[in-house]
Amino acid sequence: MNSLIFLGTGGSAPTKNRGMPSVALNYNGNLMLFDCGEGTQRQMMRYKIHYGKVKYIFISHLHLDHFLGVFGLIQTLKLGGRTEPLEIFLPRGGIKLIEAIVKIPEFVKMVEFGEGEILKQNNFSITTFLLDHNIETYGFVFQSKNKIKFNEKKAKSLGMKGKMFTEIQKNGKIIINGKVVKLSDVAETKRGFKISYCPDTRPSKKTVKYCKESDILIHEAAFLEEDKDQAQDRKHSTAKEAAQIAKQSKSKQLMMLHLSPRYKSPENFEKEAKKVFKNSSVAEDGYIVKFA
Amino acid sequence: MNSLIFLGTGGSAPTKNRGMPSVALNYNGNLMLFDCGEGTQRQMMRYKIHYGKVKYIFISHLHLDHFLGVFGLIQTLKLGGRTEPLEIFLPRGGIKLIEAIVKIPEFVKMVEFGEGEILKQNNFSITTFLLDHNIETYGFVFQSKNKIKFNEKKAKSLGMKGKMFTEIQKNGKIIINGKVVKLSDVAETKRGFKISYCPDTRPSKKTVKYCKESDILIHEAAFLEEDKDQAQDRKHSTAKEAAQIAKQSKSKQLMMLHLSPRYKSPENFEKEAKKVFKNSSVAEDGYIVKFA
Repeated sequence: MNSLIFLGTGGSAPTKNRGMPSVALNYNGNLMLFDCGEGTQRQMMRYKIHYGKVKYIFISHLHLDHFLGVFGLIQTLKLGGRTEPLEIFLPRGGIKLIEAIVKIPEFVKMVEFGEGEILKQNNFSITTFLLDHNIETYGFVFQSKNKIKFNEKKAKSLGMKGKMFTEIQKNGKIIINGKVVKLSDVAETKRGFKISYCPDTRPSKKTVKYCKESDILIHEAAFLEEDKDQAQDRKHSTAKEAAQIAKQSKSKQLMMLHLSPRYKSPENFEKEAKKVFKNSSVAEDGYIVKFA
Repeated sequence: MNSLIFLGTGGSAPTKNRGMPSVALNYNGNLMLFDCGEGTQRQMMRYKIHYGKVKYIFISHLHLDHFLGVFGLIQTLKLGGRTEPLEIFLPRGGIKLIEAIVKIPEFVKMVEFGEGEILKQNNFSITTFLLDHNIETYGFVFQSKNKIKFNEKKAKSLGMKGKMFTEIQKNGKIIINGKVVKLSDVAETKRGFKISYCPDTRPSKKTVKYCKESDILIHEAAFLEEDKDQAQDRKHSTAKEAAQIAKQSKSKQLMMLHLSPRYKSPENFEKEAKKVFKNSSVAEDGYIVKFA
């Protein structure tokens, strides 16, 4: 079973209940982190995520609260004798910052990125897009590959064999004995899973576009509508705005995080968001969402 | 009431139960930290130490696990509108490291130190001395001032008045009408409290000298005797060695910390140490020691 684990759902400063930003995604044995704030390694221990297995770390922007945890995690992995590669993806200028205070061990590969598809594996991809914050900040879209299940009996009856199975997946159709066979004639396609992660941003049209039809939209909601002027000033979003993005993008589920430490009642965020988009909730540290 | 609070008693890497190194001392309203590892600000929240009140931070050495928490703490204080000065004391080279990834707010004053008395206030002082680790590492000695309580009746009967009270404290004696009056004749002296903090070190003669007659000796014990070769290799101490330092320095109480994450039973550290020095214990995160 694949899972999404909220390691730190606070913003700017931690609170007793909310750690610094980090969301872990465990997909088919690929453990990855979206952001890695101070204390992330300990949150992984607390929530029983094996930190030694982390393969990819994606840093949204170079504000300290989003990447400070990288240093300690690298040190701990080194201490544990790690040899398998760990890839850390950072916005431009990030490598210099990491190298400034820690000697990078050999197993760490750092990559600076801009907008676009930054990672493509057999069964999933990661695409980035620019958010609207006060420094260069990226959202991340995780998309697992569609799964195709052939009805072998039917495929064979239509004359399919060998490489035709690969070809029809590639082109969506194939010609057998002069007759067009469509992929949908011989197979069921199960849509891949889409998770979008949007920390530290004003609501934006680009977010709506890139996060279209997300199964889970993780969007910041630092403020409530009553403090919208501050959300605007500091380039953050309100709960209502996060919900509007969820609605406009036709996402299935909204999970909010990065709540400002000033608010004591996350219920008010849910209440505000649900008026616009019903399937809204506030993520808490330790929340786990499982998916097939 | 003054108190010593163990915020993080782990070493090198955190565990579920032990945070990264930091010990807080609250003396007469002066809140200070000895070391400030990753997650220290959150440990302060957890153990109800008001992080906004911290006035001094003393960093023993420039290994990341001992100072990584400074960055987040500065950011959080800045966010909270801090204006009162915060003094951070670091070994040589420390300022450059801190400035490498964070813009230092105005309220932060950084001071690089070597061996000697690095802070003297009205009622306490902090003295440093070199430990024996694999990089330049310092131990810290906190010493509160002796308290003198005059027997006013007796003092007056011997002719004392005005500035004589100051003079006798300064010189230990005074001459009145040709007669020597000793301080002990007219006052009781209550010895100040002495706390010594010795992280990351092999046992050393210098430690014995500087920590002489500590009320509380905080000394690292990263290993057990059975792994003494590793303690020697990595320039750490065993529980037995920490206890020997406590005994030789004639300290009243030994508190061990910085246990290697590999050990599951702190009881073995206490058992090993108690054979040499009875009043030995392992500090746990959240331990509080109160003193007058």
